[in-house]
Amino acid sequence: MRYFKLTIAYDGTDFHGWQFQPGKPTIQGEVVGILRKLTQENVQLAGTGRTDAGVHALGQVASFKTQSRMSAGEFQHALNCMLPPTIRIVDAEEVGPDFSARFSAKGKVYRYRIYRGRVLPPMIWRYVLHYPWPLDEDAMRLAAAKFVGVHDFTSFAASTGSEEDDKEREMKREIFSTELVRSPADDQELVFTVHGRSFLRYMVRKMVGTLLHVGQGKLTPDDIDRLFELRDRSKSGPTVPSQGLVMVRSEHNESYRIT
Amino acid sequence: MRYFKLTIAYDGTDFHGWQFQPGKPTIQGEVVGILRKLTQENVQLAGTGRTDAGVHALGQVASFKTQSRMSAGEFQHALNCMLPPTIRIVDAEEVGPDFSARFSAKGKVYRYRIYRGRVLPPMIWRYVLHYPWPLDEDAMRLAAAKFVGVHDFTSFAASTGSEEDDKEREMKREIFSTELVRSPADDQELVFTVHGRSFLRYMVRKMVGTLLHVGQGKLTPDDIDRLFELRDRSKSGPTVPSQGLVMVRSEHNESYRIT
Repeated sequence: MRYFKLTIAYDGTDFHGWQFQPGKPTIQGEVVGILRKLTQENVQLAGTGRTDAGVHALGQVASFKTQSRMSAGEFQHALNCMLPPTIRIVDAEEVGPDFSARFSAKGKVYRYRIYRGRVLPPMIWRYVLHYPWPLDEDAMRLAAAKFVGVHDFTSFAASTGSEEDDKEREMKREIFSTELVRSPADDQELVFTVHGRSFLRYMVRKMVGTLLHVGQGKLTPDDIDRLFELRDRSKSGPTVPSQGLVMVRSEHNESYRIT
Repeated sequence: MRYFKLTIAYDGTDFHGWQFQPGKPTIQGEVVGILRKLTQENVQLAGTGRTDAGVHALGQVASFKTQSRMSAGEFQHALNCMLPPTIRIVDAEEVGPDFSARFSAKGKVYRYRIYRGRVLPPMIWRYVLHYPWPLDEDAMRLAAAKFVGVHDFTSFAASTGSEEDDKEREMKREIFSTELVRSPADDQELVFTVHGRSFLRYMVRKMVGTLLHVGQGKLTPDDIDRLFELRDRSKSGPTVPSQGLVMVRSEHNESYRIT
């Protein structure tokens, strides 16, 4: 048996998210469908993070095992020939049996782009939230810094739909760093980047929604501390639209590599 | 009667070009359709350049006249609310009756983007030609400089389909400047920019196809001079795909403005 790691970029606009759903276009569904044709095996493909519908990726990581004799480069080339141009295998490598896209991740970087100009350029509408109204970006920067560290992110997570389940879930997460800056490439773009060990569902989008409330003066930077204590998702900002979100990269233990 | 100038940006991927065609989505068709609803008049919309199917624009210029009392800002806002996100009115202004998008143009800038990296990023596939194979970019730069000046561009134009017509057309065009550089924003992108008084149909795409032949060693930079003399479109490079081309801006006489 041989083990492979894929690094995948995609424009999520036209997909119902990463995870396979019968009868709907998903990134996992597209990639695994081609892997099964190539290998003639019932390949299972695990992703490091289940991006929601409309979310993009520059470096989603996925893993699969096969008895095929194809090399990593051959898998990459064949997949890129058969996938739509909105999904690209940017890297493929053979790894050891211990590698798991899901369980060996030690960190992830997400980015959320907010376009501040009055007219949204047609070439980037798929990749940004358009917010042309006033924002106190200095207050937002102070608030963004508050996320760093180990905190209970209940106020920034999706509900499971069940109060019992919500109570039992581990809601503590570690954020290594955050950054909120105007893009060097386009001064009209406000970019939030967050690097953490792992994330709850909707967590980045709820963080950005809360930063927008701070920018609008509805919340203060100090309210972030209060929200960690409150553990109440109705008190934080809204879940912003998926289109502005991109999974930039997923970090994995290097020792899993075959050299 | 009042006269308006619109500056329009669009992603041409899903349109059959600028010019109205019955039953097909075109940029002119989308914009004029909304203008007629807004004004309840049979508005005519003239564009400064008829971009072909799949070609993009950052600054297409169009003009129309109306008896409506709406202001330029109101036209811009109403159009942007009703147009798809792939078409944006980036500017609107009231102009004098002498302004004509078609006949008052004194220069245009086009850009063609070539992606040189091995894997084409899914966020830019609509806007570039993917060419990952070797190219002698120094030779291409020498060739690009040869286009500057007043030349007979017969070898770089589309055929009218009639030899008689081809002979009678004025095929001299003036190019003010050209540039071929790696993009400062992404080193994998080779960007050809050309500024000229006016252009023949397919002229930029034939110029780029010829530059690619120079990069591949099939032609030399000095062959550009020879092609001007030959007046034979079968001897130049191919018409490259439309997706890499964008009309960056159209320059018009400032004296037409109402102040």
